[in-house]
Amino acid sequence: MQAQVLISEVGPRDGLQSVKATMPTANKLAWIDALHAAGLREIEVGSFVPARLLPQMADVAEVVRHARSLRGLTVMALVPNLRGAQAAVAAGVHKITLPVSASEAHSLANVRKTRAQMVDEVRQIVALRNELAPHVHVEAGLSTAFGCTLQGVVPEDDVVRLAVALAEAGADDIGLSDTTGMANPAQVRRLFSRVRAEIGAHTGAAHLHNTRGLGLANCLAAYDVGVRTFDSSQGGLGGCPYAPGASGNVVTEDLVFMFEAMGLPTGVDLEKLVHARTALQAGLPGEPIYGMTPEAGLTKGFVYADGRSPAHERLPATAAGART
Amino acid sequence: MQAQVLISEVGPRDGLQSVKATMPTANKLAWIDALHAAGLREIEVGSFVPARLLPQMADVAEVVRHARSLRGLTVMALVPNLRGAQAAVAAGVHKITLPVSASEAHSLANVRKTRAQMVDEVRQIVALRNELAPHVHVEAGLSTAFGCTLQGVVPEDDVVRLAVALAEAGADDIGLSDTTGMANPAQVRRLFSRVRAEIGAHTGAAHLHNTRGLGLANCLAAYDVGVRTFDSSQGGLGGCPYAPGASGNVVTEDLVFMFEAMGLPTGVDLEKLVHARTALQAGLPGEPIYGMTPEAGLTKGFVYADGRSPAHERLPATAAGART
Repeated sequence: MQAQVLISEVGPRDGLQSVKATMPTANKLAWIDALHAAGLREIEVGSFVPARLLPQMADVAEVVRHARSLRGLTVMALVPNLRGAQAAVAAGVHKITLPVSASEAHSLANVRKTRAQMVDEVRQIVALRNELAPHVHVEAGLSTAFGCTLQGVVPEDDVVRLAVALAEAGADDIGLSDTTGMANPAQVRRLFSRVRAEIGAHTGAAHLHNTRGLGLANCLAAYDVGVRTFDSSQGGLGGCPYAPGASGNVVTEDLVFMFEAMGLPTGVDLEKLVHARTALQAGLPGEPIYGMTPEAGLTKGFVYADGRSPAHERLPATAAGART
Repeated sequence: MQAQVLISEVGPRDGLQSVKATMPTANKLAWIDALHAAGLREIEVGSFVPARLLPQMADVAEVVRHARSLRGLTVMALVPNLRGAQAAVAAGVHKITLPVSASEAHSLANVRKTRAQMVDEVRQIVALRNELAPHVHVEAGLSTAFGCTLQGVVPEDDVVRLAVALAEAGADDIGLSDTTGMANPAQVRRLFSRVRAEIGAHTGAAHLHNTRGLGLANCLAAYDVGVRTFDSSQGGLGGCPYAPGASGNVVTEDLVFMFEAMGLPTGVDLEKLVHARTALQAGLPGEPIYGMTPEAGLTKGFVYADGRSPAHERLPATAAGART
């Protein structure tokens, strides 16, 4: 049965660059292998940024090289700018994602560029891609699309206009990110619908956070209006998804459980996915990871959307570092 | 602006009867006062069960008497059977709620009665109400409606049939409860829709749990198909809503935040609601309480659905016992 939703695992990038420790390369490769073995078919494996700024990502080219060997996997990397895109293309990624702030205040504070300058950057990246690597997919992720901790409300018109500008600049997909955990389901439905009305199939992934507990409700809302790609992070890595001030990514395990329980195949095996936590924890000893389905286990009588039954309803234990 | 959703606070019953400690009566009254002051207009204040079985509820008649003095408050109590209903009516409750298991296995294990016997019990309670207190509202809450930890899947036909039987027995409202935290949004939409197709306006509250992180997503799903009354518990009292084996009620604070952020007035003031946690904690020192909105605070630029702005985006601190 074909997967009806694509879970895009961002832990090896978003998660790892948000924690203090650096995961050794061998552990990264083992973790990505385990995520792939669990059925994940898109993984953001790292970001192409100067190693002096983000030592956790110094080995990104090596990680990309390994990830490319995994059958059927779309290997994605974040790039902050054209220079990063050049390195990513040279390393052989399948997909580039570039964050573009919907909030001008956030854009200036974060990358010291205006939104218009970032649209230009995307245009140059697309030109590079067209020339050197026409098969590489270019995604722009609109961060702070649902609100900004600096400027507060981000006008929806700004988000829609920026999405149109990015599509015109040649980005294949434009996703919406709730960077600050401010989204609510009504807003998610409204904004994705408005963006889709303008740019149609260029509408990309929902990257939603769980800062105020609304992560899965917001994913459901996005699904309801046609979103089929969802970013999430194994174990909510990169900040406690249940606490403030943290990255608070939606937990992959809980997201997969929700869709599978709803009868929407994700292609992901929850038992193997929880098993992959062992590889994550081996590479980041003591780092807390989260997730409610891994703790509660599968429901009695659970069947996957494709009709398979799990081997066990109790999921593998994840002792060290797990929330209790 | 009229409240568009009714939050039915179950903490003083569901929460308090699930913890080991007994909250002193004076603290219960102060807590209920604080919940009422925050704008809650329906509170399940206790259950009419033998005090030797549930010492936490020995003072229920006194609590009801006090709660009746609060303007505009619907005072609800749980009753397990006719005897309890007699006591509740005598104490002066406005609304009785009786749990009826949708799972035969759960019904036998829990109350040693079949579902048919429970329908009979409701019929007798309705007769009692009609005779002695025609203004009292009788609700039946279908527990294990979304799955049972004993029998696993609960056939949806069973739930619908039982809802119809309870409506025919004279119950005013029939709610659906995810006692075991097994519901998913697709199921919530399907089952509430099926029940409403059969019993129309007798369709009652959604009582949903957060055992696997889906609590708010399930509330959203229920709202989408017309549910307007939602049970929840302040601070998720009565079990960790983020862990297995626990009661895992949806956290009132997070639920109110979701609806208000969506532009749906609840009538509840989040700052005063978080302030009410102080009264809860005073009566149950050391008992952990939960909630992500209380920790994260309101979003920058937050406005209530009725257009009011909060005094502060940072919510009152709840030090002792709060999750960190």
